[in-house]
Amino acid sequence: MSKRGLLIVVSGFSGAGKSTVTKYLVKNYPGYALSISATTRDPRPGEVEGKDYFYVTKEHFREMIASDSLMEYAEYTDNYYGTPKAFVEEQLAKGNNVILEIEVQGAFIIKDKYPDAVLVFVTAPSMETLIKRLRDRKTETEEKIQKRIAQMSREYRYIPRYEYYVLNDEVEKAAERLDAVIRSESYRTERCPEILEDIEKYLGGTK
Amino acid sequence: MSKRGLLIVVSGFSGAGKSTVTKYLVKNYPGYALSISATTRDPRPGEVEGKDYFYVTKEHFREMIASDSLMEYAEYTDNYYGTPKAFVEEQLAKGNNVILEIEVQGAFIIKDKYPDAVLVFVTAPSMETLIKRLRDRKTETEEKIQKRIAQMSREYRYIPRYEYYVLNDEVEKAAERLDAVIRSESYRTERCPEILEDIEKYLGGTK
Repeated sequence: MSKRGLLIVVSGFSGAGKSTVTKYLVKNYPGYALSISATTRDPRPGEVEGKDYFYVTKEHFREMIASDSLMEYAEYTDNYYGTPKAFVEEQLAKGNNVILEIEVQGAFIIKDKYPDAVLVFVTAPSMETLIKRLRDRKTETEEKIQKRIAQMSREYRYIPRYEYYVLNDEVEKAAERLDAVIRSESYRTERCPEILEDIEKYLGGTK
Repeated sequence: MSKRGLLIVVSGFSGAGKSTVTKYLVKNYPGYALSISATTRDPRPGEVEGKDYFYVTKEHFREMIASDSLMEYAEYTDNYYGTPKAFVEEQLAKGNNVILEIEVQGAFIIKDKYPDAVLVFVTAPSMETLIKRLRDRKTETEEKIQKRIAQMSREYRYIPRYEYYVLNDEVEKAAERLDAVIRSESYRTERCPEILEDIEKYLGGTK
């Protein structure tokens, strides 16, 4: 099967666990690739260059914008985040479903440019759980947490533009739900013109 | 969870194996119920009254139409087929996803009355396989087969109105695909207003 893969945009509030879920999916299910974003933010402890992000300077990031080598980019809590184009295109052409883990602004830029993209919003079981998870992250200062909550307040009105929620209560279950969503999308009639062609070829002459 | 179940319409050409797939799904996956149709056609060998169909006379069927106790009905190769309403409503209210296995005409009647219904078309790996399966059924005369092919010729233009294809190469895989489609539909943002409500409740006051 050399059928083109699907482009999947995964967003979610900070603390919803979207990175954990997408990484689990890509590692444990076949046919997926995770787009690696470029960012100007500092690495968190344990994050690895070229695996979690490409960590670049603001100057370098602006060069990538200028050379049109990003599918989308956005500024978020004083840093740039963007999606390098070449890798995504290559994976889609190979038939892999490519997951872009990006913020709300970037998600809608992608959807406008690639209307076929599927938009998924990862949620915690409740907002209470989400805020608790965020506070339990030792890397976040109270100031950063407040900034993130303010960001959520600006973003949440756009959530209905996402097509699916994936509940992240447990990472294994969440990955399984995300896989179901993506496979289901790949079965959509408009994504499978070859099936109707086969039927038409056979029945076209029988009338 | 007392959340209302989804209404799923499953159609497919004769020989695609839609009955086998839906029966396998309902037996092996939790949270599903299979609507039992009423029909005026004769039972095939091995079929059981009240399990495969309710076998009724044409007179009885016309009484059910008159008393508005059918969700939809259709005439198909000289027989009536219809969906008794009460059972479906009861199962949906319980939170079960209800599968209606019906023909193209009936499917669109359901979609008009219940726009939330999900329309799935079960396909064989190819038309060649499908016709072979049909000829291998010992119960079908050549005349009946020709009638079914003529029926397919009338129906196939409407396939793009279905939302999903479920490929039936092996029954276990097909049931797994159908389950993925139905779960995925249940994660659609517009079907989960309670998630946005929780977010709004929490963030509404933070602005």
